[in-house]
Amino acid sequence: MNAVFPGSFDPITSGHMDVLTRAAKIFDRVTVTVMHNARKQGRHLFTLEERMDILRGATTHLPNVRVDTFGGLLVDYMAHQEPGSVILRGLRAVSDYEYELQIAHLNRQIGDAETVFIMAATRWSFVSSSMIREIASYGGDVSEMVPRASAAALRRRHAEAYAEREAEKHEHSETPQREQPGH
Amino acid sequence: MNAVFPGSFDPITSGHMDVLTRAAKIFDRVTVTVMHNARKQGRHLFTLEERMDILRGATTHLPNVRVDTFGGLLVDYMAHQEPGSVILRGLRAVSDYEYELQIAHLNRQIGDAETVFIMAATRWSFVSSSMIREIASYGGDVSEMVPRASAAALRRRHAEAYAEREAEKHEHSETPQREQPGH
Amino acid sequence: MNAVFPGSFDPITSGHMDVLTRAAKIFDRVTVTVMHNARKQGRHLFTLEERMDILRGATTHLPNVRVDTFGGLLVDYMAHQEPGSVILRGLRAVSDYEYELQIAHLNRQIGDAETVFIMAATRWSFVSSSMIREIASYGGDVSEMVPRASAAALRRRHAEAYAEREAEKHEHSETPQREQPGH
Amino acid sequence: MNAVFPGSFDPITSGHMDVLTRAAKIFDRVTVTVMHNARKQGRHLFTLEERMDILRGATTHLPNVRVDTFGGLLVDYMAHQEPGSVILRGLRAVSDYEYELQIAHLNRQIGDAETVFIMAATRWSFVSSSMIREIASYGGDVSEMVPRASAAALRRRHAEAYAEREAEKHEHSETPQREQPGH
Amino acid sequence: MNAVFPGSFDPITSGHMDVLTRAAKIFDRVTVTVMHNARKQGRHLFTLEERMDILRGATTHLPNVRVDTFGGLLVDYMAHQEPGSVILRGLRAVSDYEYELQIAHLNRQIGDAETVFIMAATRWSFVSSSMIREIASYGGDVSEMVPRASAAALRRRHAEAYAEREAEKHEHSETPQREQPGH
Amino acid sequence: MNAVFPGSFDPITSGHMDVLTRAAKIFDRVTVTVMHNARKQGRHLFTLEERMDILRGATTHLPNVRVDTFGGLLVDYMAHQEPGSVILRGLRAVSDYEYELQIAHLNRQIGDAETVFIMAATRWSFVSSSMIREIASYGGDVSEMVPRASAAALRRRHAEAYAEREAEKHEHSETPQREQPGH
Repeated sequence: MNAVFPGSFDPITSGHMDVLTRAAKIFDRVTVTVMHNARKQGRHLFTLEERMDILRGATTHLPNVRVDTFGGLLVDYMAHQEPGSVILRGLRAVSDYEYELQIAHLNRQIGDAETVFIMAATRWSFVSSSMIREIASYGGDVSEMVPRASAAALRRRHAEAYAEREAEKHEHSETPQREQPGH
Repeated sequence: MNAVFPGSFDPITSGHMDVLTRAAKIFDRVTVTVMHNARKQGRHLFTLEERMDILRGATTHLPNVRVDTFGGLLVDYMAHQEPGSVILRGLRAVSDYEYELQIAHLNRQIGDAETVFIMAATRWSFVSSSMIREIASYGGDVSEMVPRASAAALRRRHAEAYAEREAEKHEHSETPQREQPGH
Repeated sequence: MNAVFPGSFDPITSGHMDVLTRAAKIFDRVTVTVMHNARKQGRHLFTLEERMDILRGATTHLPNVRVDTFGGLLVDYMAHQEPGSVILRGLRAVSDYEYELQIAHLNRQIGDAETVFIMAATRWSFVSSSMIREIASYGGDVSEMVPRASAAALRRRHAEAYAEREAEKHEHSETPQREQPGH
Repeated sequence: MNAVFPGSFDPITSGHMDVLTRAAKIFDRVTVTVMHNARKQGRHLFTLEERMDILRGATTHLPNVRVDTFGGLLVDYMAHQEPGSVILRGLRAVSDYEYELQIAHLNRQIGDAETVFIMAATRWSFVSSSMIREIASYGGDVSEMVPRASAAALRRRHAEAYAEREAEKHEHSETPQREQPGH
Repeated sequence: MNAVFPGSFDPITSGHMDVLTRAAKIFDRVTVTVMHNARKQGRHLFTLEERMDILRGATTHLPNVRVDTFGGLLVDYMAHQEPGSVILRGLRAVSDYEYELQIAHLNRQIGDAETVFIMAATRWSFVSSSMIREIASYGGDVSEMVPRASAAALRRRHAEAYAEREAEKHEHSETPQREQPGH
Repeated sequence: MNAVFPGSFDPITSGHMDVLTRAAKIFDRVTVTVMHNARKQGRHLFTLEERMDILRGATTHLPNVRVDTFGGLLVDYMAHQEPGSVILRGLRAVSDYEYELQIAHLNRQIGDAETVFIMAATRWSFVSSSMIREIASYGGDVSEMVPRASAAALRRRHAEAYAEREAEKHEHSETPQREQPGH
């Protein structure tokens, strides 16, 4: 049996990695599929290509895991790209369980796609991509909560944002006639 | 006893219809009231008038159900338009129960308005307007999860969006000097 | 529309009274029905007759509320004693919401009986008959959390239990040959 | 990959059957294992042997499903009888999710046994063995909520209990000197 | 032991005040810290300075409570401004408990900062800053659900918004050639 | 500020120890109080005295922690033995949060006793005394989930139960005329 692990992975966390590693032992093959939506493109920290690169970097040691992407309904992906596979989702002790069930029932209803749930280890219960992004945006250390590939990408992104802010400040200091914003 | 069934109904789903049909047997009269907020107007898929039209189309077979609208606090509507009526809300097995309770307690506190809850059938547990809109935007089939009036409106909206995108493409193809965006 | 408010009411609490008082304004008639089960009879603090007496005492000021009892499935009672009525249940902010939904779906499935939920006031969120019994058994003051009829009955029961324990002690003191239990 | 579906199955419900049927398509082989505990033996409606018979009757059409039993810790069964298999559990929209997660984490901790969750269809959300037993004990019709094998066994058990009560009454009527219990 | 009570307090509610008043009796000193985020500045109803003024006005009677602000990660604030203090959070009967736990575990993980929870009174279970803002924006009366300082600020803000809308209308009435928007 | 950590501690787990160790850093003094109820005495694995001995053995390294016991309402204990102290309770990611809130509101209502919650580490989320007892009763290894004092006591109890069963078997083998129970 093959499984598809869908998500936005912006970026992949240690919680995702934990679920993926366990799934790689249970299923013959696992496809990590970055779902993208043209309308939400600007809202991500990493581009689709960056997220796939991070995923590839983080899963090289798992021979039966491959990385893919799809822009559309997950049930269409399942029907055409992965017929016969199941959807894989992680469950966290502290998580949006009801939302997960809702999506899974919907995928069963509209696409006859079955979802299988695996628990992440309790130590990753509080880790989510959005919290990782928030902490990293303040320069906080998240290296224990994401795989190396994500940590490196987050550091690069943080350095770029810092450089950008510095450049802006420099530009302002050269235009003294412009009123300095109070805060 | 009369009941008011408030919501944004963008558009009405089979879950809403299930609650409404059960309520029409319990209460003397049920008013489905589309609550609108001038500040959130652009965020809906259907205009206020469209949503009311869909509601009217979906409830013609229920003689003691009427459709209304209000822009303001629900408790003001209850006090001035429906004095003595109760607020009706549906409960889903998989739903935001705590949010429902919070709103209901608030309406009791600020407007002395009582809320009565009825369960939707379990088969609609996973259906919500936002998920319906998401699936329909990809051309997915939602006809089993909404009344006919909603399904027809969703198909029209999807066709319009498709035509718009095609028109945009055509426009681009006539302006070859402009760089074609990748992806 | 009439409503049936089923429960074991061992004894009725201020939370039950709050739900009942609100329901008496919404429904034409409300029947409070003490459900009893021959197999569980010994597990109650008050006998079926005592619980009905307390209920009658607590609801004399509500003219459209009457007290009844039934030993069997609630759906059989609804079908034969209260055809056309709805089941009434209270929802608490801190409560076993999922259990309530499960029972309500079951009653709909096996008996076509509809359930309507009303919220108890937030101040009764933490009150339940079992906690009332626990506190009262230690002589704790529960008079703010139950109607007068329940408070009086709980005091009588506590006094009886005390007298019984004293009588036992006395009996023991007259039988010195019997070894005193250490505790 | 093989899976073990553990439970007390007293008796198996349509919700269990739904999970089992879906699992039989996902896993190479599924073993339904009736866990028994010598200390809790008297608390079941059906004996271990009866429960296994019902299970065998209900799963004859599923060639890759077999029925087994074990008295002990599930992790010991997994380690010695089903090494390399995963534990299978059903998730219901209305259910004790937190308890399921707790057990699954524990089995991972003490026995390195992985648990995989599959959702039962929403229509079985409210069905549990304990509620089935309760309804059947009053002669209620549960045939839509359990497989035929369970329904037949429940009818037999109900008829036996009825006959027993009648015999008791008869015996009493032959002993007029004994005081007839009221109730 | 000192405690830090972090939040956006836009504005402080009676629920916050309840938690704060209880905490002032338990801890030697409590610091209410308005967390601000430069990127989210426009999304608040009150400016940072206004929110701090309201807080100061609402806590003058609590001698061991002081008001502070920080723009950054809470764990950095705890480490540098309040070493040795604990984080204080309120729990509501109807609330986002899982989110609270997630944040608290994260703060423990990335900053070794401990969180202590205190319950708000049940009567504030349904009160949140966002709902207060929503009601006040329609001119609803929230004076029972916020301290005086918040109520006064909300009335001022509502009056300003009203004046602004009136000024806009006036401007439109002077430009009759412009088509009046229907609604 | 002093805190009282009440419970049945049958026996104390690593989750309890985690909460206790954190609390000992936050509060001036922590009293671990074994609540006992004469009516429930037979239902425990360890006697009151054994549970207190295990607690003392597990907390010798915590100088500001002491062990006590009380048979009655917690609020009476707080009022007479620990006036001015707060009640301390642990919160688990996977736990009965609503029950905890209910008890805490009740203690505030009937005894004006305040409860403060601290989270156990996520790794103890699935550990409870009842599960520990269940696993240990089958001879499972729980040494990673309880302090040494509990593990030693559980092993002794398991050995005693084993010896008792062996003695019973021996007795049976000497009475061949008695029919051997099948199982």
